Amino acid sequence: MLKVPDHQVAGHQAGGGKLGPLVDDSGHFYKPLQSDERGSHEVAFYTAFSTDTRIPDHFRKFFPVFHGTKLLEASDGSGLYPHLALEDIVSGRTNPCILDAKIGARTWYPQAAEDYLQKCLKKDRETACLELGFRISGLQVYGNKLTGLWKPDRHVIQSSSVEDSKLALRKFISSNPSTDSDIKPDCSFASTVYGGPDGILAQLLVLKSWFEEQTFYHFYSCSVLMVYDKESILQGKNRGAQIKLVDFAHVIDGRGVIDHNFLGGLCSLIKMITDIVTSPST
Amino acid sequence: MLKVPDHQVAGHQAGGGKLGPLVDDSGHFYKPLQSDERGSHEVAFYTAFSTDTRIPDHFRKFFPVFHGTKLLEASDGSGLYPHLALEDIVSGRTNPCILDAKIGARTWYPQAAEDYLQKCLKKDRETACLELGFRISGLQVYGNKLTGLWKPDRHVIQSSSVEDSKLALRKFISSNPSTDSDIKPDCSFASTVYGGPDGILAQLLVLKSWFEEQTFYHFYSCSVLMVYDKESILQGKNRGAQIKLVDFAHVIDGRGVIDHNFLGGLCSLIKMITDIVTSPST
Repeated sequence: MLKVPDHQVAGHQAGGGKLGPLVDDSGHFYKPLQSDERGSHEVAFYTAFSTDTRIPDHFRKFFPVFHGTKLLEASDGSGLYPHLALEDIVSGRTNPCILDAKIGARTWYPQAAEDYLQKCLKKDRETACLELGFRISGLQVYGNKLTGLWKPDRHVIQSSSVEDSKLALRKFISSNPSTDSDIKPDCSFASTVYGGPDGILAQLLVLKSWFEEQTFYHFYSCSVLMVYDKESILQGKNRGAQIKLVDFAHVIDGRGVIDHNFLGGLCSLIKMITDIVTSPST
Repeated sequence: MLKVPDHQVAGHQAGGGKLGPLVDDSGHFYKPLQSDERGSHEVAFYTAFSTDTRIPDHFRKFFPVFHGTKLLEASDGSGLYPHLALEDIVSGRTNPCILDAKIGARTWYPQAAEDYLQKCLKKDRETACLELGFRISGLQVYGNKLTGLWKPDRHVIQSSSVEDSKLALRKFISSNPSTDSDIKPDCSFASTVYGGPDGILAQLLVLKSWFEEQTFYHFYSCSVLMVYDKESILQGKNRGAQIKLVDFAHVIDGRGVIDHNFLGGLCSLIKMITDIVTSPST
């Protein structure tokens, strides 16, 4: 019952000689191990984190549940390949709106090799990352019947300016998202998706409180995924918006210092979302 | 009545062909304009900031009062030279303990020229800056009669490791500061200087709340100065510990984004001071 996921907005995708993730219908997401040390690094993180008793449950819930590793037929049919077995975050959501924000002005860690550092630095400077403290890596938004699905090209979205990024955060909770710059996003879901006691903003603030405290892990090149679906919201269903951290191939030991790079970027995202909740019609 | 200040722990000092600051006995601190664009940049910042009506008074108090610029006989006697006229932060304190922490893992701004960027990046990597989110640029601590003044060489303090920096933050509020690594700092002033409703930690948290909000200015290579004197504390006098931001030669327009680089570093400093207040005897 394995298939290519319908709703991937960032990260490696199947095709062009690259392996992509797979999902099954029991709510699992299978991510092929990256072939270099990133793959083993990510397995090591999930393994350590899933048994780390220092992580309280109300912060642990921001991480996908880890179900170990599994050998599966690769997405390109080339044979058995090791995959991380994870919780499928969008499982059960029919038309999920998804935004992937890679957090941190700096995507490289202090001990990184010189060539890796300079490569990351170049990209951080070319994107809005350095200015914004995060960058939007991908998104998809289901609009109304007229506007349909809006899923901008990921290369376009990754090269967004600061203003483009602000606009994308508005479009994400609008019923009329569109590439057309003349159409002003209506932000009609700002109060229900971003706002409210269980909304995305409230969840980001809980996450922030953990990052102000925790000195165990530093998360480089890691994303906050925001997910919701309009039908659930419109029908007042229980299952509201949700955030999850994803991509842990570059997590390092915090060595007694908070992850100020992640925290700073997170605060920048929080400020922008707060502004939208406060003034949705600006 | 101009003289070289008794209590400077960081920044340019008079001597070796360089101009240094001067103080008078009416509570003014005169900082010679740096000769390149940094000097005019800092004047421009003070001029704009001092009349910026967007800054509430309870945040403005963290900045030295600006009294304009003045032509004064330079510290090396070489003639008249333009100086910034500022509030002398340690004026009236007999034996002030001072710590200068340069805030931010990154001391260069996104639009910086390539050579300047690489020079700063090199220094940020060589110091604890990148790991810690700040670096201690200098400090002096008056101990008890036996230990006297502890003022480590600024080059030594600037090359402190993460652990050295944590230790310096403990020594700063101890009665027995010493370079001798066998002497454990007693942290006897932790609760009165760092803690309490008007202590340094409370002030840093107010400053933090401003940085979570303000998108007007980004402060690169700017320091938080912490000042207190033990006599005032021991005599239970009104004038307790104080923090001030100093050094604004590299402030740029925030362009609608929070200063996540400064905020992240500030949160790292706050976390370390919180740990000392919580566990002074560790």
